Amino acid sequence: MVRFAGRVNRVNPSAVREIFKLMADPDIISFGGGSPAVESFEPAVIREITDELLTLRPDAMLQYGTTEGWIPVREAYIEHIARPKGLEFSLDDVVVTTGSTQGISLSIDAFVNEGDTVLVESPTFLATLMMFNKVGARVVPVETDEDGMRTDDLKAKLESTGARFIYTIPTFQNPTGRTLSLSRRREVARLAAAYDAVVAEDDPYCDLRYSGEPLPSIKNFDEVGNVILLNSFSKTISPGLRVGTVAASPEIIKKLVVAKQCSDTHTAILPQAICAEYLSRGLLPSHLTQVAPMYKERLDTMLACIEKELPEGTDYTRPEGGLFIWLTLPGEPDMNELLRVATQEYKVAFVPGAPFFVDPSEGRNAFRLNFSGETPERIEEGMRRLGKAFGDCVR
Amino acid sequence: MVRFAGRVNRVNPSAVREIFKLMADPDIISFGGGSPAVESFEPAVIREITDELLTLRPDAMLQYGTTEGWIPVREAYIEHIARPKGLEFSLDDVVVTTGSTQGISLSIDAFVNEGDTVLVESPTFLATLMMFNKVGARVVPVETDEDGMRTDDLKAKLESTGARFIYTIPTFQNPTGRTLSLSRRREVARLAAAYDAVVAEDDPYCDLRYSGEPLPSIKNFDEVGNVILLNSFSKTISPGLRVGTVAASPEIIKKLVVAKQCSDTHTAILPQAICAEYLSRGLLPSHLTQVAPMYKERLDTMLACIEKELPEGTDYTRPEGGLFIWLTLPGEPDMNELLRVATQEYKVAFVPGAPFFVDPSEGRNAFRLNFSGETPERIEEGMRRLGKAFGDCVR
Repeated sequence: MVRFAGRVNRVNPSAVREIFKLMADPDIISFGGGSPAVESFEPAVIREITDELLTLRPDAMLQYGTTEGWIPVREAYIEHIARPKGLEFSLDDVVVTTGSTQGISLSIDAFVNEGDTVLVESPTFLATLMMFNKVGARVVPVETDEDGMRTDDLKAKLESTGARFIYTIPTFQNPTGRTLSLSRRREVARLAAAYDAVVAEDDPYCDLRYSGEPLPSIKNFDEVGNVILLNSFSKTISPGLRVGTVAASPEIIKKLVVAKQCSDTHTAILPQAICAEYLSRGLLPSHLTQVAPMYKERLDTMLACIEKELPEGTDYTRPEGGLFIWLTLPGEPDMNELLRVATQEYKVAFVPGAPFFVDPSEGRNAFRLNFSGETPERIEEGMRRLGKAFGDCVR
Repeated sequence: MVRFAGRVNRVNPSAVREIFKLMADPDIISFGGGSPAVESFEPAVIREITDELLTLRPDAMLQYGTTEGWIPVREAYIEHIARPKGLEFSLDDVVVTTGSTQGISLSIDAFVNEGDTVLVESPTFLATLMMFNKVGARVVPVETDEDGMRTDDLKAKLESTGARFIYTIPTFQNPTGRTLSLSRRREVARLAAAYDAVVAEDDPYCDLRYSGEPLPSIKNFDEVGNVILLNSFSKTISPGLRVGTVAASPEIIKKLVVAKQCSDTHTAILPQAICAEYLSRGLLPSHLTQVAPMYKERLDTMLACIEKELPEGTDYTRPEGGLFIWLTLPGEPDMNELLRVATQEYKVAFVPGAPFFVDPSEGRNAFRLNFSGETPERIEEGMRRLGKAFGDCVR
């Protein structure tokens, strides 16, 4: 009889696993994932870049690399992603990760001991809650509103809990799609410095803006070097390549590198080099300009369908970008029963809200919809089905 | 002032970092790494496979995948790697990892709590020692001889420590190059079952055999489902692709998948698909037949040079495969001073033995040489330099 460590026994994967399974069913119209549109991928460009890399740098592509990451992708991130946002980094400030998920995981490894208190937006990314459970952290939710994390509550919680680690998704947040306001970004940086707390700023969606003006990162207001900025190429180039970046002070990066040595030695070279070449060819800005209208159409289509198909009194967010809309149904629906009916009887999938909360009872009548993964036609059909499913259940 | 978690403060990366830095110097002849020969890579084949994958399966290559891994690579592992060794696995028995390192890390995540006692060969893979330090495990060394881990001492240590986790590299071990004998493989499985311990069988070198007969894995003798078999494509296809596999009971795989969800969501798809296609095309057996003589020549060259160039009384192993030779110098040399002289004055690198031991004082006069990464000519030149360096220091 094998006995598992507390670390993995504390984590309940069911919510995520269930969604994965559903997405495998081709008949299902899925609003459940967090996937970019396959129509946004550029396989021909990737193929041509890969050919060139394997022709010109074959040994480097196939041999071991360093834990810090492929230098050209760190340089390309610094020049093409960070600098245009007013962020100046050197190579020592950046480590490449196997997707943003690893960036979150390494940050937790480096800063959160078992029993430590950490602060998160409520609701927040469910995989991060899993990671906090894995290390045995005490997770305290911070209240949010239309402008994201409420900094008055953040201050109160920093004061009352002594937490020294703040996890936030400031832009087009997962799951709500909400964006932290400019003044609050400044205030989060100020409070973190004042209370000697580290901020893990998870910002994978920031380049997917369809309306409104771009905002600076919390990192732009970091005067003491305690903000860890996590970016990803998953939503802009390809999630399957699993390449993300962490930018922080060299002191922090050194510890993240130690944690990464103990995690996967280094990120696969070819995917790193593909992202480096894609960026250094200057392909990202035009790509983002091309995909934004496509995503905006999907977002607008879904918002219109919510009005048309979902029960009266359904409350929902109106994001300016990203991948998600967050909805709250009137009354006291049984969300798991709704998911069962929607997926099994109407072949449409969504994610129930409960797993995004520290206290799942809070999310009972909420759910998350992803609008980026399906075409407008499929969104309309899927929302019709969802409306019927909810009609059956919400009486 | 940022305060780091005990996890990363417990890990001292210096030994590994130092070697990485040295390998970056092109003038240095490096016997320090654990890299396969670049001459063994097949970039043209990889390029052709990648072209086909990005042409025929573009969406699948670039979109998110499942945590368990790309099904074709799990199927190919089962058919082309496991079955020929007499191991029968189903898809539920296999998870794909981002290199073997992640397989070790996930196994520790799933089974080792802070303060738990674990057993390892002495000496053992230094990165694994780093991982055990990271989780705060109590690491107890088990004595080894020419036939690998001594099972009488393993039994005694299981008895005396109550350890429930055994880490072993049974074939062409890192750092010694030694191989666990057949009878001991059977005995390790038997003892692990008897004492209700889990065995992490780390076997990345098993397919690199240059003489002698292949041996079954410890997993072949696993009757209770407590052996975790870690394999890797790093030493046979390419380390830069970062693809490895873990084979264990479905109950264990489920927990490893939970840990992996919290680590990097999934391994990059393209590298997984490249390995799958490489295997299903049946390219591995002929590749191994081709590289074995090349590696054997490098091994034999280095063994001859040890006799010729190194101080009399130098003791060393004579591996039948893998990448490493383990040496012990006579007297009481200062190994760090030796490394300094060798690298700075003679431009040749090796790895001091101390970091491979739980108690570094044990490894004072030992060191590891990698023979796979350099050509026979460079091996002869490098060993001459090493002889001179040791001549300067060992008086």
